Amino acid sequence: MVLSVSLPHGPGYMIHFASLDDAPGILAREGLRKGRCIVVTDTNVAARLKQPLCDALRSRGWTPKAVVLPPGEATKSQDSLQIINDAALGWGIDRETPIIALGGGVIGDLAGFAAATLLRGLPLVQVPTTLIAQVDSAIGGKTGINHVVGKNLIGAFHQPRTVITDFAALTTLPERQWTSGLAEVVKHALIADPTLFELLERDWPSIVDRHEATISDIVPRAAKVKARIVSLDEKETGRRAILNFGHTFGHAIEREAGYGYFTHGEAIALGMRAALHQSSLVHADEDFDRADRLVRRIPAPKLPSHIRRSRLMAAMRSDKKVRAGKLRLVLLRRLGEAYVTTDVPARGIEAAWRYVGVKR
Amino acid sequence: MVLSVSLPHGPGYMIHFASLDDAPGILAREGLRKGRCIVVTDTNVAARLKQPLCDALRSRGWTPKAVVLPPGEATKSQDSLQIINDAALGWGIDRETPIIALGGGVIGDLAGFAAATLLRGLPLVQVPTTLIAQVDSAIGGKTGINHVVGKNLIGAFHQPRTVITDFAALTTLPERQWTSGLAEVVKHALIADPTLFELLERDWPSIVDRHEATISDIVPRAAKVKARIVSLDEKETGRRAILNFGHTFGHAIEREAGYGYFTHGEAIALGMRAALHQSSLVHADEDFDRADRLVRRIPAPKLPSHIRRSRLMAAMRSDKKVRAGKLRLVLLRRLGEAYVTTDVPARGIEAAWRYVGVKR
Repeated sequence: MVLSVSLPHGPGYMIHFASLDDAPGILAREGLRKGRCIVVTDTNVAARLKQPLCDALRSRGWTPKAVVLPPGEATKSQDSLQIINDAALGWGIDRETPIIALGGGVIGDLAGFAAATLLRGLPLVQVPTTLIAQVDSAIGGKTGINHVVGKNLIGAFHQPRTVITDFAALTTLPERQWTSGLAEVVKHALIADPTLFELLERDWPSIVDRHEATISDIVPRAAKVKARIVSLDEKETGRRAILNFGHTFGHAIEREAGYGYFTHGEAIALGMRAALHQSSLVHADEDFDRADRLVRRIPAPKLPSHIRRSRLMAAMRSDKKVRAGKLRLVLLRRLGEAYVTTDVPARGIEAAWRYVGVKR
Repeated sequence: MVLSVSLPHGPGYMIHFASLDDAPGILAREGLRKGRCIVVTDTNVAARLKQPLCDALRSRGWTPKAVVLPPGEATKSQDSLQIINDAALGWGIDRETPIIALGGGVIGDLAGFAAATLLRGLPLVQVPTTLIAQVDSAIGGKTGINHVVGKNLIGAFHQPRTVITDFAALTTLPERQWTSGLAEVVKHALIADPTLFELLERDWPSIVDRHEATISDIVPRAAKVKARIVSLDEKETGRRAILNFGHTFGHAIEREAGYGYFTHGEAIALGMRAALHQSSLVHADEDFDRADRLVRRIPAPKLPSHIRRSRLMAAMRSDKKVRAGKLRLVLLRRLGEAYVTTDVPARGIEAAWRYVGVKR
């Protein structure tokens, strides 16, 4: 199965739903020249998938070099970038040497940024191994690293040459990564795909249990939402911002709770509940309650008791998406229809935070 | 006077030949929103031009913050980039905060790369203050920093929103920077503008003396060559490579002599003489000798006695422009007509190095 991402400028690319064993064939079809390649991954993923991928590549004439980093958000740093750069440049690469990002969002963003900036741009192959990466972060060309001031503050748009999505990688994910990853699937349903929403409502138990047939239904459908939106707006000058539904709230809570307390998906789930509540203050749609019920099925730890509304509201104002001092929020007009607005009264934001249980 | 750079994708931009005092008016016309801006410069340039530019900006409602770095190639580093990033993010910027690069090639490349990667891309205003920057490096969107393995190995393409070129900045340049900067002007004449070549031959003495009328003749004409080539090939996938005429030889000699011994322009002048000689081994054109005579008018220090052909040839092979192990060179078919070739016999390269006085 293949999904294509078209782009307003440039040639676009394919998402191949395939086994990692097929990677060499896919690289050949995508016009990549056999030779050296750099595989960037983390120790968790490496234990399961580095060997199979590298063996497949070697057996077809590639010479892979693996750069294996610690797992977790802290790896999305200048130091890790330097490790990749030193390894690549010290080994010897040229402008056709691909960078293969084997992992979740952290590895995809980091290796993607290395590919964006090594020799002013190398071919990038995304091989997403988490649910969030398969339906969201590996598609669309956003790459970057964190800065002490905030997440994703340094980066570039660099579209992959191709994406190879292997569902088998999902079956060995830790439970919490799986369930919290469902937040981004739900998000895509809420902002743009009412049919996906109904599938999620109906099949939730078998999704949580990772039934193979359900995965191969849900993942490409959620990935397609992302692909379609990126096609309309490659560099987030307009439409693409709806993908941030729940994120301005979610980033604030992720930061205030202390990175690592919530997974990204859990924070986004909370953020979506806040954004849904705010939407329900502005628009009349009975489905907002249905949506809230679906989001609540994503398990999450309790809100830490130290979290206060005033701190969250300050954190929201320092978000990267603020322009000219104006907070921009994504709201739903109705299920499946999102929009961006700067017309957001503080009272509405407060009510949203109160709704999800944050104290004054 | 205004020169426009069109681009295959995206809106293109203008080069304004104007006084720094006019900067605020130009920024307004270019649609930049008054507010904070970051001025990146070096101590040499700052002494002459930081105050006038920042005063002009302040008087028209901007709030500039200056980041002043040491002069010289060593500043094109990850450490300097970090200084700019920390200053910008610590101060507080949003996606419309412009980065203003006030300086020569080092500052333009470095500040340009910061603009390319801060918040995944900020508006960049190039204010080139050296001859090389005005006719070459400030135009075309190549940005980047050096790596211990080699120069410009980490970077991005990021086109400026606009370029403000003030001839007055050239009158206070140190003598050696001025004369060696003429190398890039000569290069543009050799690869694409025979009329410019004749102007240079005819007016050389008044060019060296920086007569105002000659400067305002020569600089826009040389800038136009660069603008035209960039318009054809924004990301150096083809035609644009002819701008590297003399550079594969030049980079090798710059490195082997030890960075700082030759200026970039002096090394490129030597490199162009080598490339002209190699061209003359392949094509019959009497003007190659005329061209060599013009290049020799650029003063340069003696070749260091430790330099050897074998080392230079190894250095050429590690150049960033090598693809699939193939050395790519730019040669002239005749005056004003350059092309890229991978069909370069080692014997020709050796003869070229011998011609410019390099020992075996």
